[in-house]
Amino acid sequence: MPELRKDPVVGRWVIISTERGKRPSDFVIESEERRGGFCPFCVGNESKTPPEVLAYRQNGTDPNQPGWNVRIVPNKYPALQIEGNLDSHGDGVYDFMNGVGAHEVVIETPDHDKDLVDLDVSHLEDIWWAIRERILDLRQDVRFKYILVFKNHGASAGASLEHSHSQLIATPIVPVQVMEELDGYHQYFAYKERCIFCDIIRQERETGKRIVQENDRFISFEPFAPRFPFETWILPKNHQAGFENSQKEDYLSFAEIAKETLLRIRRALSDPPYNFMIHTTPLNNDEQLDFHWHMEIIPKLTKIAGFEWGSGFYINPTLPEDAARFLREIQV
Amino acid sequence: MPELRKDPVVGRWVIISTERGKRPSDFVIESEERRGGFCPFCVGNESKTPPEVLAYRQNGTDPNQPGWNVRIVPNKYPALQIEGNLDSHGDGVYDFMNGVGAHEVVIETPDHDKDLVDLDVSHLEDIWWAIRERILDLRQDVRFKYILVFKNHGASAGASLEHSHSQLIATPIVPVQVMEELDGYHQYFAYKERCIFCDIIRQERETGKRIVQENDRFISFEPFAPRFPFETWILPKNHQAGFENSQKEDYLSFAEIAKETLLRIRRALSDPPYNFMIHTTPLNNDEQLDFHWHMEIIPKLTKIAGFEWGSGFYINPTLPEDAARFLREIQV
Repeated sequence: MPELRKDPVVGRWVIISTERGKRPSDFVIESEERRGGFCPFCVGNESKTPPEVLAYRQNGTDPNQPGWNVRIVPNKYPALQIEGNLDSHGDGVYDFMNGVGAHEVVIETPDHDKDLVDLDVSHLEDIWWAIRERILDLRQDVRFKYILVFKNHGASAGASLEHSHSQLIATPIVPVQVMEELDGYHQYFAYKERCIFCDIIRQERETGKRIVQENDRFISFEPFAPRFPFETWILPKNHQAGFENSQKEDYLSFAEIAKETLLRIRRALSDPPYNFMIHTTPLNNDEQLDFHWHMEIIPKLTKIAGFEWGSGFYINPTLPEDAARFLREIQV
Repeated sequence: MPELRKDPVVGRWVIISTERGKRPSDFVIESEERRGGFCPFCVGNESKTPPEVLAYRQNGTDPNQPGWNVRIVPNKYPALQIEGNLDSHGDGVYDFMNGVGAHEVVIETPDHDKDLVDLDVSHLEDIWWAIRERILDLRQDVRFKYILVFKNHGASAGASLEHSHSQLIATPIVPVQVMEELDGYHQYFAYKERCIFCDIIRQERETGKRIVQENDRFISFEPFAPRFPFETWILPKNHQAGFENSQKEDYLSFAEIAKETLLRIRRALSDPPYNFMIHTTPLNNDEQLDFHWHMEIIPKLTKIAGFEWGSGFYINPTLPEDAARFLREIQV
């Protein structure tokens, strides 16, 4: 069972997951071994993953057989495990909790050679719908406080398998990054009685200089204070707290803008490694947890070094206004 | 002039430093070009750096000439600039500040082929003394609130030049990582009337299972909730708020334990890339800012991916108790 441990000074939880297991000698060569060769996510290899929890498949095809378009399976090497209770306990100044949670893999396509942006918009729409379905299912489990949807693209962004996939992890604690955004959101709301994200969108649309693109329901732009060059956010233009509570038409519109924005980034930067993550309202939310969901995309172009680790300041060598202009000019 | 910008949601400041300048095309190939070939930190090349602000040199040698043992120069590509005032201002929901600060490079040895751990203990002691001298000088500048001392070892830890060096950056804002530690420190003190770090040291010495080594004045151990495999902290065993206010004998003792601890990490993990950073009390400190200074060492063995970026949770595949045992067993 993975273990959650809390740093007694800053209160940061970490997941100690030795079942993904590394002995000291394992670190000597950073493994790319799992790339190339056999792929458990390819069509025909369905038996090499844990049984699917959701799949969109052609009529008449059986579970865990070919015929699927999008397939969601539990992660074979989960960071958190679904069984058990939290069993929170202490030892002197230290706090522990069992590593309870869910960790699922969204296999975005049966085709090994296609990236997310190579798929049709309707296929991306299916992916968001499938993720929505999993969130609606997982949020019934009262042990879970948050579900993080994210993607690692490229080995240096942390992808251990190259077949296009994203992931969702349900956690028993609201992650600190999300708490910080929620705290900022509520402080601003208490002062202004307005949503900070709605105010940001209004200001961005007035100046236009950091906008990458807009469609009927969404906007993508470079944030004012980006940690990374070409960091890009996508937000619904109308206030919506939770990703899974959006309207049907929203997912199509989000599929369009996500595909085109990621395509601009791919063309501008020669298919860079990147991560995206969706920040949304925590589960079991009440009015206290109003929020404005969004996707954050971070291409991996710069190295994080001692200054960033030690200070929490990020040094960004690219003006977001320049990055936005460059991305706007890309043909999609 | 670099610009400081504040994220309006989470309040995180970033440094936009375009003078270190990257156009989109610059990111396509991650540059290792500056490695190998000419080295501006080597003896004889003193004219290729900005003029030194401090050097420990043989009697009779002139500034910016050979004959030095440790040499500190302003960074040629500074993240922050020494001239100017903060000129804090806003634009709608956004906040700016001029990127005022100091950014210096500590060239730890004239010998290109020696790493920090290859140097004598007395040489390391000179390095800490030189850093202390620079802090005592820089803290007279009332614009600065904090000085971060850090090192990047190895290209994938962010070192752009391989000649052994560390850096110090004086910032006009207390960095958020330090603020979080200070806040945790003061919350604990308000509740217990004891220093959290002193309590951690007491508990670690009682169990012994995460200790790497001890000498008369310092202890190195794996923290209870490490973000990274083989993350290691070094703390003075007696309560001391600020690095620069330590006793003379402390720097020798710190030199010993830092050298041996880093040597264990090098031998255990085949010279991994790593960062270290010193967390100390902010400048212009009063009693409110009591603290317990320490060094954090983070080997770069795992990749930070979308889950970590999106959640702030770290997944660590190695128990700190296992890492500590492994490091203790290394011969130094």
